[in-house]
Formats: sequence, C-alpha cells, structure tokens
Amino acid sequence: MMRPGDMDGALAAAIAAGDEVHGTTSPNPPVGAAILSADGELVGVGGTQPPGGPHAEVVALAMAGAAARGGTAVVTLEPCNHTGRTGPCSHALADAGIAAVHYVNPDPNPEATGGAQYLAQRGVEVSRIEARTRALDAWLGATRLGRPHVTLKFAQSLDGFTAAVDGSSQWITGEDARADVHRDRLTRDAIIIGTGTALADDPSLTARIGVDVPAERQPRRVVVGSRDVSAAAGNLVRLGYEQYPTLAEALDALWETGARDVLIEGGASLAASAIEAGLVDAVRAYIAPVILGDGRGVLHGWSASTLVNAPRFELGDVTTFGADVLLELRTA
Amino acid sequence: MMRPGDMDGALAAAIAAGDEVHGTTSPNPPVGAAILSADGELVGVGGTQPPGGPHAEVVALAMAGAAARGGTAVVTLEPCNHTGRTGPCSHALADAGIAAVHYVNPDPNPEATGGAQYLAQRGVEVSRIEARTRALDAWLGATRLGRPHVTLKFAQSLDGFTAAVDGSSQWITGEDARADVHRDRLTRDAIIIGTGTALADDPSLTARIGVDVPAERQPRRVVVGSRDVSAAAGNLVRLGYEQYPTLAEALDALWETGARDVLIEGGASLAASAIEAGLVDAVRAYIAPVILGDGRGVLHGWSASTLVNAPRFELGDVTTFGADVLLELRTA
Ligand SMILES: NC(=O)c1ccc[n+]([C@@H]2O[C@H](COP(=O)([O-])OP(=O)(O)OC[C@H]3O[C@@H](n4cnc5c(N)ncnc54)[C@H](OP(=O)(O)O)[C@@H]3O)[C@@H](O)[C@H]2O)c1
Ligand SMILES: NC(=O)c1ccc[n+]([C@@H]2O[C@H](COP(=O)([O-])OP(=O)(O)OC[C@H]3O[C@@H](n4cnc5c(N)ncnc54)[C@H](OP(=O)(O)O)[C@@H]3O)[C@@H](O)[C@H]2O)c1
Repeated sequence: MMRPGDMDGALAAAIAAGDEVHGTTSPNPPVGAAILSADGELVGVGGTQPPGGPHAEVVALAMAGAAARGGTAVVTLEPCNHTGRTGPCSHALADAGIAAVHYVNPDPNPEATGGAQYLAQRGVEVSRIEARTRALDAWLGATRLGRPHVTLKFAQSLDGFTAAVDGSSQWITGEDARADVHRDRLTRDAIIIGTGTALADDPSLTARIGVDVPAERQPRRVVVGSRDVSAAAGNLVRLGYEQYPTLAEALDALWETGARDVLIEGGASLAASAIEAGLVDAVRAYIAPVILGDGRGVLHGWSASTLVNAPRFELGDVTTFGADVLLELRTA
Repeated sequence: MMRPGDMDGALAAAIAAGDEVHGTTSPNPPVGAAILSADGELVGVGGTQPPGGPHAEVVALAMAGAAARGGTAVVTLEPCNHTGRTGPCSHALADAGIAAVHYVNPDPNPEATGGAQYLAQRGVEVSRIEARTRALDAWLGATRLGRPHVTLKFAQSLDGFTAAVDGSSQWITGEDARADVHRDRLTRDAIIIGTGTALADDPSLTARIGVDVPAERQPRRVVVGSRDVSAAAGNLVRLGYEQYPTLAEALDALWETGARDVLIEGGASLAASAIEAGLVDAVRAYIAPVILGDGRGVLHGWSASTLVNAPRFELGDVTTFGADVLLELRTA
C-alpha cells in the first residue's frame, strides 16, 4: 500500500537525481526519475547519463528490476517518446509494467514529446505534478529559445562595483560565495569571457570544489573577441579553450555542439553587449555588504537611455553565503 | 501552572508591543513588556509611552492589576532603576509582587542600569533571555555612540544606480517596497536630506501609510547644507523643517533634542559624506531587478581608494517586497 508521503519522498529523490547529473547531460536534459514499488517502497532512482547513455527512467527502472511491476514512476520531465541514441522511455516504462507515471514538466521538444499520450494509451495512469526543478530551468529555456540559455554572473559591492577605483577586486565576496561560484560552474556546459578578461586576468575558468574534477567534467572555456589572447592567457592555453569573434557566433557554435546552459563570467564589456543584445536569460549577482563609492561597474559600454527602457527581470531565489547574498534573476 | 510555550507567547507579545511604539518614545527606548500571572496567563502587555508617560513595565502592570502578584514579567530591556520623569520600573515590578523577570537586553545607560540587581536583591528571580528585538537596535546603538543612530536608505537598480542616465528614477522599485519606505519612516525620529535633494525634488518626507498620520507622529524633516532651500522646497516649508550647515551639526542638534534614530534618505553627496565620516550605522538598500548600465550612483563625491579600505557591513535581514529585495546592513 502507498502511504501519504511516499510520493513526496519519490519526488524529492527524482529532483535530487536530476540535480546530481546537472552539467553532464547536454544536449540532453538533466532529468531525475524515481520508482515506487506497488506497495510504496522507493525501489529505483536515477538521473540522465551522459549523451549516448541511458535516460533517467531507464537507470531507475534498472535499479528497481521486477519491483517496478505495478509501481509508480515520478519523473522531472515527461518521458520521451523518441528513438534517438537510446529507445523511448515511454516504452521502457510501459514494458516494465509501471502502473502510474507522474511528471513535472511537459517535454517541449517536438521530436521527443508524446510520451504521456503513449503511456495513457497503454493504460498507464499519467498525471502532471507541480514542483520546482531547478536543474531543468536552463535546458527548458534553451529548448524554447533555440540557443544556449545564458546566465550572467558577477560579484559586486552593494553599490554595484566589481572592483575599486584602483582595480582591486580580491576579494569582494567571501569564501562561501566563491565556493558557490565553483559549484555552479560545474553545472554549466561552458564559461564565456571577453578577450579583455582573458588578457587581464589569465583565468582558469575551472570548477574547483575541493575534490579532483576530471577534465572532461569541466565546462568548456570560451573566449569572445578578435584579439589573440594566447600569449597572455597561459592558463587557458594549458587547459584548452575555444575563441569566437562575436558572442552570437559563440552561442551558435555552442548550440550546434550540444551546449545548452552557458555562463558569462566577464568582463563588463562582454556583459554589456550581452544585455544590449537581449541575450541574458538569467543573472546571478553575488552582492557583498561593502560600499566602494566608485570603481568598475558591472557593465561597461551600454546603458539604458531611460528607466522604462531598462531590462527588468524577475527576482528568483535569494540565498545568503556567509556575509554575502546571491540574487538570482531571470527573464519574466 | 506555567505551561511550556507561555514564555514564548509572552516574549512575542513584549517584542510586538515594543515594535508598536517604535518611533514614538525617543529619547526613551521603545521597550515592550508582558506579564504572565502565576498560572501562566498573559495578563498584561505594554510598550513605552511617549516621553513623560509611563514605561512599558508600568503599562503592562496596570493592565495586569492584582493578577501580576506571583507572576512573571518579560521585558525587551532591563527594567530601569532610575527616577526620571517616572519612577524606576524595577521598584514598580517588585512592589507589584512579580516573582520573576526575564529581560532581553541589559540597559547600557549608566544612569538607568542596576534594575536587575535591585530586583534580585528584593528576591525576584532575574534572568536574561536571547531574542531579536529590532525596535531597540537603533536606540541601543545611539546610546553606545552618544549620537543618533544613522541609517542610510536608498533604492537602486541591481547594478547600483538610483536613476538612469537621463535622471529618470520613478519608479525603480515597486509599490510594495515604496510602501515599506513609508512604514519605516514612521519608526524614525528624523529624516535627513541634503540641500541638493531638497532643491531638486521638493520632497515631503512624511510617512504616508494609507491612514492619516497626525503631524506630531511624523518624523522631523531635516535639511543639511548651506544653500537656502525655502524658495524651491515648498513642501518642506509648508510642513516645517530644520536646516543645519553640516551633518555633524545636524546630528548634534538632533541628539540634544532627543532624536535617537535617524534616516538619511539622500542624495548621493550627503550619503557619500556620511559614509566618508563613518557616520553610517546601518544601510537599508532596496534593490530592484533592473539593470541600468550607467546613471546616478548611490554615492557621489567619495570612493574607497582600494578594496581593503572600503567600509564593510554585516548582512542583516534580507526581505523581498514584491519584485524587489531589501538588504539591511549594519556595522559589525
Ligand atoms: N576601469 C575599468 O573599468 C577597466 C578598464 C579597462 C580594463 N579593465 C580590466 O580589463 C578586464 C576586462 O575588461 P573588459 O570589460 O574590456 O573585458 P571583457 O568584457 O572581458 O572583454 C572585452 C572584449 O570582449 C570582446 N567582446 C565583448 N563583447 C563582444 C561582442 N558582443 N562581440 C564581439 N566581441 C566582444 C571584445 O574583444 P576584442 O576587442 O578582442 O574584439 C572586447 O574588447 C577586467 O578584468 C579588468 O581587469 C578594467
Ligand atoms: N547625475 C547626477 O548624479 C546628478 C547630478 C546633479 C544633480 N542631481 C539631482 O540632484 C539631487 C541631489 O543631488 P546631490 O547628491 O548633490 O544632493 P544632496 O546630497 O541631497 O545634497 C548635496 C548638498 O548637501 C550638502 N551636504 C552634503 N553633505 C554635507 C556635509 N557633510 N556637510 C555639509 N553639507 C553637506 C551640501 O549643501 P550646500 O552645497 O548647500 O552646502 C551639498 O551641496 C538628486 O535628487 C538629483 O535629482 C543628480
């Protein structure tokens, strides 16, 4: 017998499984799935494997084995109905004898959609459930837009400066916020910077999270602009990077090669041109409780002519990291 | 018999009573008190009355009457032991037969302190309890500093601009945030602006909260600077205002005349000189999820030479108001 609460536990497990694989699945979505047996035991959990590998539902079904028969699947995205490098998940669920499927987000992909309908035709009880599935935000946005979902990230003083008048910027935000930046990088397909930042800072753009991260798990390193940075950007040369003359070309190439979730990390000129072009889908602003009065702004080279023309976002999560606060914005 | 939870209820009632009178008590602290009878009933609640009126404990004891005998008092500040315009609250509590007194903040005022000691000598059980008593923050700060506690308030775009390049600033933040500004003004003893703002904006600086606020309940309106603003600032002339040539002189005069909790509301030059002089004890930054790129900054005329010299605050409460977020900072 299912008990109240079993579904909540399965949903939480599915969401966590999706979070776990976030950053490893593109161009596929980071989906999470959980299987409850007929009597409400959590018997399978899984997330989408890297491209070419099994989807979340198949991983969870494999763990559940025969216990899936007559059971319930909870999935963060509508099961696909499409034969790509793997078979359709809708078929796998029906074939395993799953009696009910609850999913959070409908599949926006015209090629893959139809899973819910197929399952219903096979006599499976299908329903949508409401939940916050952060790991899918960027993928869903990218699929809708037909280009990578772009997040603009910066760390600033309360009054909007990323460095003091003398250029000093280490460290505006504290250790906890900086650790979060590294955790976040790991969820991205690519980190993009302008040539100015590549030349000035010789950055590594890797996710350093205290444990060794294999090179193939790191986000791609992308430089935008015409200047040759190879002489100055030793870290990028050592680690490998891609360069494109414009942001639009970078996004096109990234999309074509499977990136769905990319992060712009600087500098102010690239950030300004991304905002001006309407290419910023989300903002991740780490704000330190420090006041600089003047210095380097978040954007350089573009401004809204008047308040009503300025890009407005929706306020998303607000999270404190030690002394600092992270404001997440997204397009409305 | 006291039940677990009675104390929590009394503490919450005392804190709410202090909040209720916040903005009406200076130079006295906005204290709240609650009385539990011997069997744990909430029989009295009160807040500090305007100067010359009874203190919180006396209001709460009056409500409790004979039910206070053998009971417990919960007070946000150590009961005073000082005969000013009213008698010492410590005596009033002991005389009413209160058996136990729990207070949150010790009285920092050398003249008024000693209440806890007096009560203990009279056989009353006295102890300190931990709680957040927001209404007392500014008064405690002012008492420690020997000058009014100064809060700097501004509304800005995410990237730190209070107006766009063309000067447009109505409205950066939404209705809910603006309503909060008015509620907050009512808790202040004075609102301070520079002559630049007085001349440019002809502000009223009143708390408009949907219901009629009597004039004597409004904060004092204070202008800092040497320029005569009377010709341009019609609203201030109509409502009455004070003007001082410098911020230091304004704070001195305000302290001498009883103000403890003052708010600097603009403009950028006055804000900069307050920060430069180390006179900002708290910041109230309303941040809108809009990006301007350039415009009028929060401060004008001062900047930190380098990051390590910049004033750092502690992050306090983070509150969302509709689409906007309020960050409250305070000196560490
Ligand atoms: N006081 C200041 O504000 C200031 C001034 C100067 C430098 N800096 C330092 O310089 C660093 C970065 O400055 P920055 O803001 O100029 O760096 P940035 O944004 O990383 O790089 C700017 C460069 O990116 C390229 N770019 C940006 N948007 C583009 C677009 N849409 N299409 C094509 N190319 C695009 C251009 O490259 P190409 O020119 O190569 O085509 C542009 O010159 C900072 O880290 C800082 O250390 C600060
Ligand atoms: N683009 C911009 O950034 C910009 C530029 C100009 C004007 N504005 C407009 O002007 C308004 C206010 O500008 P603002 O920032 O100059 O205004 P403000 O800060 O309200 O007023 C500045 C004046 O306050 C006085 N003051 C400030 N600190 C002082 C101190 N410590 N001691 C003595 N006097 C002090 C001085 O007055 P006295 O000079 O009278 O002695 C100073 O000129 C805004 O509302 C805006 O509409 C904006």
